[in-house]
Amino acid sequence: MLHYTLTKQPGAPLYEGLYKAIRNDILQGRLQAGRRLPSKRDMAADNNLSITTVLNAYQQLMMEGYLVSEEKKGYFVADIAAMPDMAHPGTERKPLYVEDVWFADFRSNSILYHHFPFATWKKVLREILSEYDLELVKRANPFGLRVLRLQIADYLYRVRGISVSPECIVIGAGIEYLYARLITLFPPAAIYAVENPGYQKISQIYQAYHLRWKSVSMDASGIYMDDLRTQDAAIVHVSPEHHYPLGIMMPMNRRQELLAWAAESDERYIIEDDFDCEFRYNSKPVPALKSLDTQGKVIYMNTFSKTLSPAVRVSYMVLPDHLMEQYIQKTHFYTNTASSLEQYAVARFIEKGYFERHLNRVRKLYRQEGEHLWRLLSESRQIPIRKLSDASSGTHLLIELDTDLTDAEVKRRAEERGIYVACLSDYCSRNSDLYEHTLILNYSELEENVQREAIRRLGLIFV
Amino acid sequence: MLHYTLTKQPGAPLYEGLYKAIRNDILQGRLQAGRRLPSKRDMAADNNLSITTVLNAYQQLMMEGYLVSEEKKGYFVADIAAMPDMAHPGTERKPLYVEDVWFADFRSNSILYHHFPFATWKKVLREILSEYDLELVKRANPFGLRVLRLQIADYLYRVRGISVSPECIVIGAGIEYLYARLITLFPPAAIYAVENPGYQKISQIYQAYHLRWKSVSMDASGIYMDDLRTQDAAIVHVSPEHHYPLGIMMPMNRRQELLAWAAESDERYIIEDDFDCEFRYNSKPVPALKSLDTQGKVIYMNTFSKTLSPAVRVSYMVLPDHLMEQYIQKTHFYTNTASSLEQYAVARFIEKGYFERHLNRVRKLYRQEGEHLWRLLSESRQIPIRKLSDASSGTHLLIELDTDLTDAEVKRRAEERGIYVACLSDYCSRNSDLYEHTLILNYSELEENVQREAIRRLGLIFV
Repeated sequence: MLHYTLTKQPGAPLYEGLYKAIRNDILQGRLQAGRRLPSKRDMAADNNLSITTVLNAYQQLMMEGYLVSEEKKGYFVADIAAMPDMAHPGTERKPLYVEDVWFADFRSNSILYHHFPFATWKKVLREILSEYDLELVKRANPFGLRVLRLQIADYLYRVRGISVSPECIVIGAGIEYLYARLITLFPPAAIYAVENPGYQKISQIYQAYHLRWKSVSMDASGIYMDDLRTQDAAIVHVSPEHHYPLGIMMPMNRRQELLAWAAESDERYIIEDDFDCEFRYNSKPVPALKSLDTQGKVIYMNTFSKTLSPAVRVSYMVLPDHLMEQYIQKTHFYTNTASSLEQYAVARFIEKGYFERHLNRVRKLYRQEGEHLWRLLSESRQIPIRKLSDASSGTHLLIELDTDLTDAEVKRRAEERGIYVACLSDYCSRNSDLYEHTLILNYSELEENVQREAIRRLGLIFV
Repeated sequence: MLHYTLTKQPGAPLYEGLYKAIRNDILQGRLQAGRRLPSKRDMAADNNLSITTVLNAYQQLMMEGYLVSEEKKGYFVADIAAMPDMAHPGTERKPLYVEDVWFADFRSNSILYHHFPFATWKKVLREILSEYDLELVKRANPFGLRVLRLQIADYLYRVRGISVSPECIVIGAGIEYLYARLITLFPPAAIYAVENPGYQKISQIYQAYHLRWKSVSMDASGIYMDDLRTQDAAIVHVSPEHHYPLGIMMPMNRRQELLAWAAESDERYIIEDDFDCEFRYNSKPVPALKSLDTQGKVIYMNTFSKTLSPAVRVSYMVLPDHLMEQYIQKTHFYTNTASSLEQYAVARFIEKGYFERHLNRVRKLYRQEGEHLWRLLSESRQIPIRKLSDASSGTHLLIELDTDLTDAEVKRRAEERGIYVACLSDYCSRNSDLYEHTLILNYSELEENVQREAIRRLGLIFV
């Protein structure tokens, strides 16, 4: 009889605990090759588990080669030493990549998984699976399925005031992928401007492709036009609806200035990253920069990674007509990177209204979470808060700290307590000293009880 | 006094109606720049609204730049540039991209859709959908799901004699995507060598990212080593198992020469594109170059696009340890481009043996198709065939023509008859004159009756 004491971990299925416990015993040599495991029924009874839980654990172990099953005989521990090295790197070598596990990850821009509408999403996928055959496997339109592009065009018009032809929408398996495609449309010497502070991922992509990029300062209205001009950039990357991490909403006059700047030269373009537009709580989102773009100067980008899930790989960009023509010419021989099944599913999810219903629901949840975190912080007696941003949009708060501790020290102390945080200075490629002593707390993944404990632990840093 | 008749729309807050009415008046010029609006109290009284409703509408208008407020003076219409009229996206226009439709497309490297194992594939997808929840939506390992990487490692060992750790396998949504990621690992000035003739897509990717690439001649054993040395390349791209389009299988001595070349300098690497390895009909595939790679010089690439379907977006590459370490460092912040659902499905498809069963089936089909096409061609009295390649591997035939017609003319005449063909010269970036008068017929997508009619029509060209 094998006895394992398993406690349900939030977010992890129970079978995973059993799977890990048995795998561990095999790797440690406590369960040796050839040893017969208890039947599913016995294992379930001995450990007070359901047979399904045991079955799932056994299947996972078989899939990974730790167990073998013999018909009518049962499950046996595999001879892992005899298997090729590569099947069991755990026994042979240190894994090259191990994801950190934190009690609370305030850096994560992920979603509240437990509120994902699994039932509806699966229903839609099952519908697509019953209705389509050939369409799911044949080579699809290289720029994305037409049904999805139509739904996106309609959604953009309804929700963001953007009027675009579906012909100018390009679907891709993620924003980073689309960036990597987009740069092939511009001359090799073009200078890309990114906001400082801003998403470091963007400049990392430019860096990775050996392109020239410069960072531009921000003022209270967003990207600082004088600095943009000084940098001699051709392509500028902005998030006018909700700048990350500063949270700035670019007002209309700055938008007009930016468009006027782009109109001055044929080489100039604006990339509008609208990823956070769905999360404004006290008012409607402001119409996108793209909706004001009469001269074909704005490239609009958005994704379903945040609104649906990071594992649903469907993002999109909207190109001005003439760039779309170039894009078609240069890339029509590529296969689209997004799966047809998921493209159909997202299209139907939007079409049936499930997407907007889901958005309304998570918008409420994020708002509550944000307000909850805001209250926790305002009431904290230990965190030396000089200024706290409001929780009226986005899914993060900024906390200006009244402390002598360096940002590195704050982060180190937080990590010691299982809390992973970023500082504003982490998002700077220059002038990071101007942005010191400000924590960024992304809360979209964190439930209220986790928040409470995390803020308590953060407080301990300053004691 | 401004009077608006607002009716409550279900689902829309009342302030939105007021906001839209005022915005409309501003856009239409009925409320001109500088005009003072009624106070919130007056506006509320005049229109039988609450002050909060008016406040919300004014705030939205201010945020969008239609109104400005001056302290103690009130709200004024802003001086905004005329905004574009928003046409609904449904507006009729010519599509920018239309896919050509051919009676027979001999350029397509696609699959026999009607033989795709829909029932099994859907069964697997449905299983995954019932068994998993959280795993389908949570942020996955950035390099690919472990279950899939384990299955691929196992498959590579079993079928291709390659022993690799799953840790060194990177999953991505397509080979082209993986290429675009791979180049970020090499210095910007590195010279890439591609085979001539060869896949033009590869050099197009290098071109798109403004990298230096050179084409290297082929001899009967594959890439010509003397020419490779002359080109001063660092990274060379080859398909030793089955060169496209020449169909050459690189013999062991050339493989050793190539590995020795790579070993001469730390900067040198070989990219082994093994996409066609599954289609060798009279013998087992030769062990991959990667399986001979003791020095970490070979990057191995393969995809399920050809073996499963181009719409299943799961490809992979195997990196040498030290490159994998670099890759992890540079790209762990990217989200994987392949959908988790499809990754789980492909993993189970392999694990359950469905994949190899499917491969055995299509391998037979392709062999039959190839032999059928070969017979049709040998029996054709009209096509002036000088030499016909054999159909013992891959999914295309080469036909050397005895004709004075230029390649362009042959293609034009074929297209007039609904037949889309490529010539060997299309796959050359230089010395295309050496490869003139040779047609490439890809047949993997074409059933026997289509082949028969297509060959009849091709014959008419030469009459």
